[in-house]
Amino acid sequence: MTEADAAVTESVQATARRARAASRELGLASRAQKDQALAAMADTLLEGADVVLAQNRVDLELGKENGLAESLRDRLTLTPERIVGIVEALRELAGLADPIGEVLRGSTLPNGLRLRQVRVPMGVIGMVYEARPNVTVDAAGLSLKSGNAVILRGGQAAARTNAAIVELLRQAVAGTGLPADSIQTIDQYGREGVRALMRARGLVDLLVPRGGAGLIQTVVREAQVPVIETGVGNCHVYVDGAADQDQALEIVLNSKIQRPSVCNAAETLLVDQAIAAAFLPRALGALAKAGVKLHLDAEAAALAGPGVAWDTATSTDWSTEYLDLEMAAGVVDGLDGAIEHIQRYSSGHTEAICTKDLGRAQTFADRLDSAVIMINASTRFTDGGQFGLGAEIGISTQKLHARGPMGLAELTSSKWICLGQGQTRN
Amino acid sequence: MTEADAAVTESVQATARRARAASRELGLASRAQKDQALAAMADTLLEGADVVLAQNRVDLELGKENGLAESLRDRLTLTPERIVGIVEALRELAGLADPIGEVLRGSTLPNGLRLRQVRVPMGVIGMVYEARPNVTVDAAGLSLKSGNAVILRGGQAAARTNAAIVELLRQAVAGTGLPADSIQTIDQYGREGVRALMRARGLVDLLVPRGGAGLIQTVVREAQVPVIETGVGNCHVYVDGAADQDQALEIVLNSKIQRPSVCNAAETLLVDQAIAAAFLPRALGALAKAGVKLHLDAEAAALAGPGVAWDTATSTDWSTEYLDLEMAAGVVDGLDGAIEHIQRYSSGHTEAICTKDLGRAQTFADRLDSAVIMINASTRFTDGGQFGLGAEIGISTQKLHARGPMGLAELTSSKWICLGQGQTRN
Repeated sequence: MTEADAAVTESVQATARRARAASRELGLASRAQKDQALAAMADTLLEGADVVLAQNRVDLELGKENGLAESLRDRLTLTPERIVGIVEALRELAGLADPIGEVLRGSTLPNGLRLRQVRVPMGVIGMVYEARPNVTVDAAGLSLKSGNAVILRGGQAAARTNAAIVELLRQAVAGTGLPADSIQTIDQYGREGVRALMRARGLVDLLVPRGGAGLIQTVVREAQVPVIETGVGNCHVYVDGAADQDQALEIVLNSKIQRPSVCNAAETLLVDQAIAAAFLPRALGALAKAGVKLHLDAEAAALAGPGVAWDTATSTDWSTEYLDLEMAAGVVDGLDGAIEHIQRYSSGHTEAICTKDLGRAQTFADRLDSAVIMINASTRFTDGGQFGLGAEIGISTQKLHARGPMGLAELTSSKWICLGQGQTRN
Repeated sequence: MTEADAAVTESVQATARRARAASRELGLASRAQKDQALAAMADTLLEGADVVLAQNRVDLELGKENGLAESLRDRLTLTPERIVGIVEALRELAGLADPIGEVLRGSTLPNGLRLRQVRVPMGVIGMVYEARPNVTVDAAGLSLKSGNAVILRGGQAAARTNAAIVELLRQAVAGTGLPADSIQTIDQYGREGVRALMRARGLVDLLVPRGGAGLIQTVVREAQVPVIETGVGNCHVYVDGAADQDQALEIVLNSKIQRPSVCNAAETLLVDQAIAAAFLPRALGALAKAGVKLHLDAEAAALAGPGVAWDTATSTDWSTEYLDLEMAAGVVDGLDGAIEHIQRYSSGHTEAICTKDLGRAQTFADRLDSAVIMINASTRFTDGGQFGLGAEIGISTQKLHARGPMGLAELTSSKWICLGQGQTRN
């Protein structure tokens, strides 16, 4: 480790120790105090919108100079309207129930010992994410509501915007008497800062990477602190022989094209050979018409109409999360063929089946090991907001601790509190 | 990596792939099938007890030759009676409710989409533990009951005993029609096998290390698969100024001496200065009389009676999990002093307070970040059996996924199943 890297490590650890101290105070805060802080965060962000927008213009200017892609610049862009939307989300968060203190289980033992398992904050949460300023505010709000101190690390392209936002949020929190260090950023420490955060064992209770597969893989491989993997979605739609084909077509189109850039969009269409000749020409035609680039296996290709452009699907296609108007499609040997394909290529996010057959729907749900199974519904519903969880910090594709959309409850741990009257063990 | 290491990695990965295939079958098994397999495991173990005992004698003989400590040889020793106890535990496991399929949450969304979050198995669990043959059977039974395939790696000193046990368990499982590969061992691959298991990303869903702090630290640092840390317990008993002193004395003695070798035994006694002069002479005298070696701070030492042997407590003492008749003791400045000390040195397992003051009990429970807080009860109650969880695979000291005693539920994940009637997203 170079001297400069060692200095960064020391700075990030000092940040984490301040976060720990703040978390001890924040963890004891009442719901009223936390909601007051969220309201202050909303107000202060609105009042300081001009400063944030000015810094955002500088970030966008630099992004343009550095050749940042149009789609990434769009996610980085703030407008007065977008700030109002972000502030609105904070106010909605204040309206949600406080997860802290909820009694999860409890019993009185034969010896009279009274047990309660109570929901408590994690403590210190690290968030590593892309250059999306709205995530800065969301992550700060969700962490605060769940009693956790947060250490933020956004994409470098948004560094100036995020610095302005974090400064305002810290002022707001401090103004209500809660510790400013409940919200901190380590953007100023660059990539070495992220590495130090991943290694801050004992100082960081949970690290949540949000972003592309590359970032998540790096974090999972190198982190020495607990991690929740989020968001890589190679989602499938299987259209069964017993499907309502009109309904299935709507589900396929909605899953693919309603918002192709997000993790719950479908990437692969699998069609039962029993109805392939009837269904695929319609589906491929409609997808092509909607501008979807198609990668087809031989059987699907044979059913593509003359006006439909396609190339041959490779095994890379079956594994790819396109996040774009692009889809792989193939014919499978019924339900078993679909399950086999999905078990092989899925990232464990969301899989949909279109069928009127109850037994097949049940088998699909039982045998596939993914966070969410949709039966006759679009994959796009896998979302904390849609699920009614109120807010979402990401979609977990791992099996430990959290699976699927992660709301406030997933940012908490638990603690057993046992009330005795002098019990000892024999 | 040497050629031999590469071969071990390949073998362990092949083991894990067989476990994955087995887990897909086992995950669909009904409770009746699993309980039948548990009963067969119990029967087969009893019938084959002679084989197991013979291999155990060889392990013990070798252990003696290799200078294995007396206490470790005791944990390694099997007798007909101990086998009956182990078998009994399997039968009790069969009597427990099946965690799989439990509906954790559910709702019907405004658009009619019906959501259920259902408990499902983790898939493939790795267990790395000491040379204790009873853990081999416990881990196999708990994994099977929760629908998980297990890969076992016990201490090398028990290798022959474990091989005999695993062979019998596999026969029993296969005899009931479930896959024999639900239970596998990698003992034959030595230390490199453990390393391969820790790196088997995507093949192992959960790794549970059980054993000393060294093993757990290594696994947590090097593992690339999800891990639950278990069992390091630097537990504290704080005797508050408002304690019932007779009761507190019983709790201190029980926490320390009832079974000193386990993780929920107390290692440090902290006494409020307000009652130190009254309480400590009695407590230290009783502990010394029970054969407890004492490490005292200056204030406690000044209160040790003439017949009490002690040495000066160092900062190492405050951090040490003795697992023996040995204890550190000191005087603190009331509740705040106790909390400060525990926050600094605790491993986050169990902390006890003895007090009649409700406010202080609540503050102690709220401010300490440990898995279990005991109010006027012995630390020794932190145990899955005692808590009525029915069975225990270990005690988690981490905050992610599982905290405190881990029963069957902690070996599971969840999955969302969403039943629609053609819903698409706007």
